Amino acid sequence: MGDEGHYRSFFLLKKDWNFLLGLREIGRGGLGTMEEVDHLAHERSKAQFDVDAMKVVWAGSKHALDVSDRMARLVASDPIFRKDNRTMLGRKELFKNTLRKAAHAWKRVHELRLTEEEASMLRLFLDEPSYVDLHWGMFVPAIKGQGTDEQQKKWLPLAYKMQIIGCYAQTELGHGSNVQGLETTATFDPKSDEFIIHSPTLTSSKWWPGGLGKVSTHAVVYARLITDGKDHGINGFIVQLRSLDDHSPLPGIIIGDIGTKFGNGAYNTMDNGVLRFDHVRIPRNQMLMRVSQVTREGKYLQSDVPRQLLYGTMVYVRQTIVSDASKALSRAVCIAVRYSAVRRQFGSQDGGPETQVIDYKTQQSRLFPLLASAYAFRFVGEWLKWLYADVTQRLQANDFSTLPEAHACTAGLKSLTTSATADGIEECRKLCGGHGYLCSSGLPELFAVYVPACTYEGDNVVLLLQVARFLMKTVSQLGSGKQPVGATAYMGKAQHLMQCKCDVRGAEDWLKPSIILEAFEARAVRLAVNCAQNISKAASPEEGFSELSADLLEAAVAHCQLIIVSKFIEKVQQDVPGHGVKEQLQILCNIYAISVLHKHVGDFLATGCITPKQASLANDQLRSLYSQIRPNAVVLVDAFNYTDHYLGSVLGRSDGNVYPNLYEEAWKDPLNDSVVPDGYHEYIQPVLKQKFRVSRL
Amino acid sequence: MGDEGHYRSFFLLKKDWNFLLGLREIGRGGLGTMEEVDHLAHERSKAQFDVDAMKVVWAGSKHALDVSDRMARLVASDPIFRKDNRTMLGRKELFKNTLRKAAHAWKRVHELRLTEEEASMLRLFLDEPSYVDLHWGMFVPAIKGQGTDEQQKKWLPLAYKMQIIGCYAQTELGHGSNVQGLETTATFDPKSDEFIIHSPTLTSSKWWPGGLGKVSTHAVVYARLITDGKDHGINGFIVQLRSLDDHSPLPGIIIGDIGTKFGNGAYNTMDNGVLRFDHVRIPRNQMLMRVSQVTREGKYLQSDVPRQLLYGTMVYVRQTIVSDASKALSRAVCIAVRYSAVRRQFGSQDGGPETQVIDYKTQQSRLFPLLASAYAFRFVGEWLKWLYADVTQRLQANDFSTLPEAHACTAGLKSLTTSATADGIEECRKLCGGHGYLCSSGLPELFAVYVPACTYEGDNVVLLLQVARFLMKTVSQLGSGKQPVGATAYMGKAQHLMQCKCDVRGAEDWLKPSIILEAFEARAVRLAVNCAQNISKAASPEEGFSELSADLLEAAVAHCQLIIVSKFIEKVQQDVPGHGVKEQLQILCNIYAISVLHKHVGDFLATGCITPKQASLANDQLRSLYSQIRPNAVVLVDAFNYTDHYLGSVLGRSDGNVYPNLYEEAWKDPLNDSVVPDGYHEYIQPVLKQKFRVSRL
Repeated sequence: MGDEGHYRSFFLLKKDWNFLLGLREIGRGGLGTMEEVDHLAHERSKAQFDVDAMKVVWAGSKHALDVSDRMARLVASDPIFRKDNRTMLGRKELFKNTLRKAAHAWKRVHELRLTEEEASMLRLFLDEPSYVDLHWGMFVPAIKGQGTDEQQKKWLPLAYKMQIIGCYAQTELGHGSNVQGLETTATFDPKSDEFIIHSPTLTSSKWWPGGLGKVSTHAVVYARLITDGKDHGINGFIVQLRSLDDHSPLPGIIIGDIGTKFGNGAYNTMDNGVLRFDHVRIPRNQMLMRVSQVTREGKYLQSDVPRQLLYGTMVYVRQTIVSDASKALSRAVCIAVRYSAVRRQFGSQDGGPETQVIDYKTQQSRLFPLLASAYAFRFVGEWLKWLYADVTQRLQANDFSTLPEAHACTAGLKSLTTSATADGIEECRKLCGGHGYLCSSGLPELFAVYVPACTYEGDNVVLLLQVARFLMKTVSQLGSGKQPVGATAYMGKAQHLMQCKCDVRGAEDWLKPSIILEAFEARAVRLAVNCAQNISKAASPEEGFSELSADLLEAAVAHCQLIIVSKFIEKVQQDVPGHGVKEQLQILCNIYAISVLHKHVGDFLATGCITPKQASLANDQLRSLYSQIRPNAVVLVDAFNYTDHYLGSVLGRSDGNVYPNLYEEAWKDPLNDSVVPDGYHEYIQPVLKQKFRVSRL
Repeated sequence: MGDEGHYRSFFLLKKDWNFLLGLREIGRGGLGTMEEVDHLAHERSKAQFDVDAMKVVWAGSKHALDVSDRMARLVASDPIFRKDNRTMLGRKELFKNTLRKAAHAWKRVHELRLTEEEASMLRLFLDEPSYVDLHWGMFVPAIKGQGTDEQQKKWLPLAYKMQIIGCYAQTELGHGSNVQGLETTATFDPKSDEFIIHSPTLTSSKWWPGGLGKVSTHAVVYARLITDGKDHGINGFIVQLRSLDDHSPLPGIIIGDIGTKFGNGAYNTMDNGVLRFDHVRIPRNQMLMRVSQVTREGKYLQSDVPRQLLYGTMVYVRQTIVSDASKALSRAVCIAVRYSAVRRQFGSQDGGPETQVIDYKTQQSRLFPLLASAYAFRFVGEWLKWLYADVTQRLQANDFSTLPEAHACTAGLKSLTTSATADGIEECRKLCGGHGYLCSSGLPELFAVYVPACTYEGDNVVLLLQVARFLMKTVSQLGSGKQPVGATAYMGKAQHLMQCKCDVRGAEDWLKPSIILEAFEARAVRLAVNCAQNISKAASPEEGFSELSADLLEAAVAHCQLIIVSKFIEKVQQDVPGHGVKEQLQILCNIYAISVLHKHVGDFLATGCITPKQASLANDQLRSLYSQIRPNAVVLVDAFNYTDHYLGSVLGRSDGNVYPNLYEEAWKDPLNDSVVPDGYHEYIQPVLKQKFRVSRL
């Protein structure tokens, strides 16, 4: 207490001095004081469009903007939801704090009588992974999708009120992508009318499920159904894991957290768990029986409910992942754009200020394609939402015709957008130079918390191979006169696309949507057809497919990039209200398309879709597009309407007042609690005082 | 105490049970027991070369292998040097532990009377950034390089004995790459014969120097020298920061840590610091005066010591960074290759084991180019070491002719190898699937601790622009008959290279060194010449240079990749002892060259260096090279001779016994100290018990 008091008073003294010194010298240094000053006002004054109109476009509608704006402010203004200290907390403290936030959010949802839409927005701006995500995002949907009406009637009300908290226990220590390889068994015991859930091997331990490690009372467990010695494959079972009285694990259940994950804060707020069963018994009616049943006698029956319905759920989940990608990428881009406008380096003319780094072409050529990608992903996500609605309608009318294409489409876009976003966040961090490496920049945590998206809900490479399979199938059917549908419809024009010539003569020709579209379609078709031809030369299609899988990935990527470009173009062709808004989207659309073309120019040249001359014209056009977007860059990220709380970055502050705040943040680090570090007497002084040098010199 | 005892005993019970269960079931699961079993024995039995001979090649010599082997074991066997708990420690604990290790290492160095070579190897295998690195790596060399003989005589003995601990205080809050923009001032006061060191603005605060925050007693501070009101630019000054008695900061000095950085553990063991001066006085003789002096009267004099000497130091430091890159990348590749051989997914034939993921072409096409890069970087690093020795010799003979080229060369290779390594580590993490996201995989920390290398000692983009400048200069002089030297010598053949045609007819032609070399030389020259021509069209060279800087980066990259390819080819053309060793290096060299060609095929096609047909033949050759390297992959990473301690990865264990150890690691997480998590009563129970639902429903 005495000591603590000593530290505190000393610390305050030191801080006060810094602060005064800071103020005095900031004045001198012309950096502006700690009072509210907009260091980006000059940038904002240059904008050539109506930012409020753009905010509506980004949000999707006036209503959506209003809701997200209210919820964002609600979270930002509540001290319990602060997250600026998150990267400094130890795992236990961090996790307890997450539990606190989750409970408080649940409380507020009820106190304020929030709608479901508002509640989910509130969770979004909480911006902290927790068991709640799995309860609402996986457990409830699994029961809805795979439970019978009685099962839904029994379990959903409990879940909705959170009288039980559930998770989704599928992956195992030895089994991720290959669900059919799961080892956990659910053996029916006719005597007791129960299933016996068991973990026969170490590799069958459930591993990774979020919310499992420390919180969930229940789980949907996926296991091999065995009746009368016969293996009927993987089915879902509702299993209670913990006592509802004292939260202790039920008999026969070993359960825990799988350990620290990548990054400070980040996903360590989540209790990803390990779970093992030692012959745990559950009543028969806790097998999710919508698609298949086990009778009292132990007979295994398939219901007439079409299994395709399960694909519908996948389409839904992956569609949400794509819209999350645009959110994560836009946050990183917002930080990098603002800081690039604040940061100055080199190019000072006779003692004047240095050049803003955002004015360097090298910075622009890395940053602006990411800005364009954030918008591109936003719009393709919007379209996927529509696609899901369309598919669901058709399913209800028992029309499964478009499902395979929609499934391939969402799988591919999930893969492409999450990979591009993970790489893009890290690129934004590098674009912020050394300071991007500080946790106070927000970028390290944003990266660490985002990257799992490349692996969960389908590993990105595995997903692209699924797309490739679908493309090969489509190509093989072109002869049969079967018309490709949806996003593969362009393949119907294969004959034309295989030999068409790009007629770009000047750089400005690259601004014509028809020209861009045809170039991307031709590239996609030609890569796919080349693969198909090479596969046909192999001993067997399977051999050919696996031998050429690296090329197939590139063909799948080309197909997905075409979809994104075409949806961006469609968006821009609609009429978009607001002064200058459409023009900016037009520029962003062109930047996205041409920068992708530049990055993959090898594809376009190798397949003869464009000539080297046309490639260099595209490059010229790209440079001029960068100059056009430059004056609008800062306001284009303002249009995301993110609060400083949600951004969680000193470098990305909307007022651009970076340096004094970086300085103040530093002093909050635990290492600065005392001037002389803990360990000085044991480990530093002895070195300085030559305590170890007895032996020599 | 009672509680604690309760937890411990409970915990032990639980763990024992898991453990027994684990053993029993591992047996059943056929995963092998926890006893020593080599799960990679089968892989090792397939090797087609002498691994011990390859170890010598990798280490550089029998002697180097012996030293590193002894030091690695020394560190691995000392419990004080354990690092497996590093990612779970809070910042303070973590830092104190680093101080402890540093002191212990210093103690061992003396007890064992280690040579300098052995001592630096020991520090390497300690594998934990600390103030020690800056003391030996920056502080001492700065005094050696910029201090007069008297200054060296006074300060070096103190530094060698660590009676003082020093750091290198250059970068400031507002100034990184642009050293000439530093704001800290050192004003000479003739009255007292002292310099007054001062921080005039907030942005002039020293920011980032390692070892500064909590440990260093002294620093070499870079500041604007001002005499008699005249600014003489940046010079170095030796400044004492902390009392040698009680370690408290000296008057007028504000000093602290700049806060938490990217990742768990990682660089948070380093006290990167902030430092501000309030008119701090130092004697005149503490300005480093080898290159320029200030006399008693305050006259500023330039010595006759050539300033180029300072470049020599840069060449040295960057050369070491390149060899560090090969170490970091090889560690990540070692982990990913071994785990890819252990991990099985899909492709199980009638109940048999699934396919090893390393057998998938998609895995190979991402993993094997990185394996080849690790070797490529190792050899180019070796060559740079030679280059530095050569330059130093010439400098001593006052021959500065090769310095600019050597400087450009090291700058470019620093940039290229560190960027490729940072990306490569993250790619290896993704190649390990979900488990790569766990800290116990070692990859998250390896990535987080490595990425700063892309920024420090010259931002990678800034460095590439320096290379580009040098290339443009070289091109512009081609007409004048001045022969390009060193790594740019090939530009002397510009006329031939501008119009030569690649004569690859079959895939096997791509194995010919002469063909690969010419293709890379032609690509590099053509990109450089194109840039030069486009620049010449601009209003001014400067305008043209900045307008085309994105293209210039690509030209610089092409030049650097050519250097790496050519040095790898040279290495393979020497005679390499050991059965099969040369053959494996040959394959790796071809994989490196052709995979780079594939990745940048757009350059080669756009400049007409190769045809689309030849590009696809290269692709075919690449696939067959992957099949050839596959059986040797595991042993090629064994050749790095890394201990499990140094790797620090459960996935990369040399015995491949991954799953039981992943499982055991999980239980060590603080969250598993208790079964029911801290916070249950306050934040989980109330949710389950409907405490918040008063208002509604």
